Amino acid sequence: MAKAIDSISIIGSGNVAFHLGRAFRGQITINTVYSRNAKSGQELANELSAKFTSKIADIPLSDLALICVNDDEIGNVIDQLSIEQSVAYTSGSVGLNQLPQRDDLGVFYPLQTFSKNRETNIFEVPFFIEATNEVFAQDLFDLAWMLSRKVSFANSTDRKNLHVAAVMVNNFVNHLNLLAKDFTESKNLNWDHLKPLIKETAAKLQDINPSDSQTGPAIRGDESTISSHLDLLGGNTKEIYKLLSESIQKQHSK
Amino acid sequence: MAKAIDSISIIGSGNVAFHLGRAFRGQITINTVYSRNAKSGQELANELSAKFTSKIADIPLSDLALICVNDDEIGNVIDQLSIEQSVAYTSGSVGLNQLPQRDDLGVFYPLQTFSKNRETNIFEVPFFIEATNEVFAQDLFDLAWMLSRKVSFANSTDRKNLHVAAVMVNNFVNHLNLLAKDFTESKNLNWDHLKPLIKETAAKLQDINPSDSQTGPAIRGDESTISSHLDLLGGNTKEIYKLLSESIQKQHSK
Repeated sequence: MAKAIDSISIIGSGNVAFHLGRAFRGQITINTVYSRNAKSGQELANELSAKFTSKIADIPLSDLALICVNDDEIGNVIDQLSIEQSVAYTSGSVGLNQLPQRDDLGVFYPLQTFSKNRETNIFEVPFFIEATNEVFAQDLFDLAWMLSRKVSFANSTDRKNLHVAAVMVNNFVNHLNLLAKDFTESKNLNWDHLKPLIKETAAKLQDINPSDSQTGPAIRGDESTISSHLDLLGGNTKEIYKLLSESIQKQHSK
Repeated sequence: MAKAIDSISIIGSGNVAFHLGRAFRGQITINTVYSRNAKSGQELANELSAKFTSKIADIPLSDLALICVNDDEIGNVIDQLSIEQSVAYTSGSVGLNQLPQRDDLGVFYPLQTFSKNRETNIFEVPFFIEATNEVFAQDLFDLAWMLSRKVSFANSTDRKNLHVAAVMVNNFVNHLNLLAKDFTESKNLNWDHLKPLIKETAAKLQDINPSDSQTGPAIRGDESTISSHLDLLGGNTKEIYKLLSESIQKQHSK
C-alpha cells in the first residue's frame, strides 16, 4: 500500500525542522526546504538532498507542507501556501481553530526539546496528532509512526495542557540549573560537581513518583538551613528559592 | 600498608546510611549500626552483617563513627559518643565549627540524592572532605576514594554553597516536576508522556551550557502563550510559573 504522505516540504530551519528532517531522511521524499534564513535553510536542504528556497511562492505542491516555525508566524505562512496544499504544524500551544482554515490542516507535535548539535532518540519522542478531518489525522498518525512508537491523537486543549507541563519540566528546570550554575561559579566552584546529581534527579523521575522522592531542607522543615541559604542568595534566585521552598512546604502539609 | 580507617560504625539508618553502608560492604569492617528506628536499623545491620544497637552507649570504639542523621541531630549524637571516637558526618550544610569539638572530627559529604530502593553508581558520586586536622582529612579522603573517583577537599563555606546549588538542581527541580505531574493528571493526561522530555532536559545539561539550551515562550518573549498558560494555572503553580518566566526574561535581557 502506498503511503498517503510520501513527499513533504519543510517550512523552517530551526531545531525542530532539523530533527524532523533528519528523522524523515531515507523514509520519504523531502522536496523542498523553505526558510527566511538562507544559511541554515540551505544547510538543512543540503543535508536532506532537498531544494532550498527562500520564496514561499516557489514551494511546489507536495503531500504535506510541515510547518516548523515560531507560533506567531504559523498563520502567516499558511496564508501564503496554495489552498490545495495539505499543511501540518509542530506547535504545542497553537489551537487548530486559531489558524486560517483549509481542507487538510493538522498538528504534528513532538513533545521534546531539540538542539541542532545533539542527537535525539526520535523513536522515544511522543508525537501528538490532530487534524480538521479524520482521514488526514490518520495520515499524519501514520507519518509520525514512521519515526516513533509513541504516537497519540490529542485535541488542542490536551496538547496545550501538555505544553504547559513541558514548559515546567523543561524550560523552568533548565532555568533553575542556569541560576544554580551562575551561583556555583560566582563562588568559584566547579559546576561539574553538580552534574551527577542533575542526572540522578531526572533518572529518579522516570521510576519514582516525585512526591516520594522529595528531600531537602524545605520538606524537612529545616528553617535554619533555609534561612542560611537565603542569606547567601540575591535577586531572582532568592525570590525563587523562597517561593519554591514555601510551595514544597504547602504541598507537604496537604 | 594498612588502611587508616578499617572499621566503622554507622549512625543512622536513612537513605544515606543505606547507600554508604552498601558501598563499604566487603571493603572495610562495619561493626555496628546504631539507629533510633529499630526496624530500619536492624534491616541495615542485617544487610551489612553488622551488630545493631538502639543504645548509643553500646556503640563500640572503631576507627570511625560515620554519622548519617538529620542536620539538627548531629551535635546531639556527637555529644554522646566517647571522646576517643573519631567522627565524621555526611551533611552538606552543617559547618565543622558548629559542632562539639574533638581531636578527629570531619566531614564526608556525598553530593547526591539517595533512595533506599534505587541503586546509585557510587563511583560517580562527588565526595567532599573536611576535617579538624590534616591527617584525619587524608584518612577520610582515602576512605572516600575506596568508593568514588570524584573526591575533593572542601571547606565548610564551599560545601554549604554546593549544597545550595544542590537544593536548586534537585529539590526544586523535583518539586517543579511534582507540580507539573499534578497539573497533567488534573487534566486527565498521562504523566508518562513527559518522561522522555525530563530525561533529555537533564541529558542536555551534562553537555550544554543551560544558557545555550533555554527554549520556550518566556525566552521567545511570547507573551500571549505565557498569559494563556497562566489562565490555566492556579495557586502556587501560577505564582511559580510567573516568577520563573520573569526570571528567564530578565536573564535573557542581560
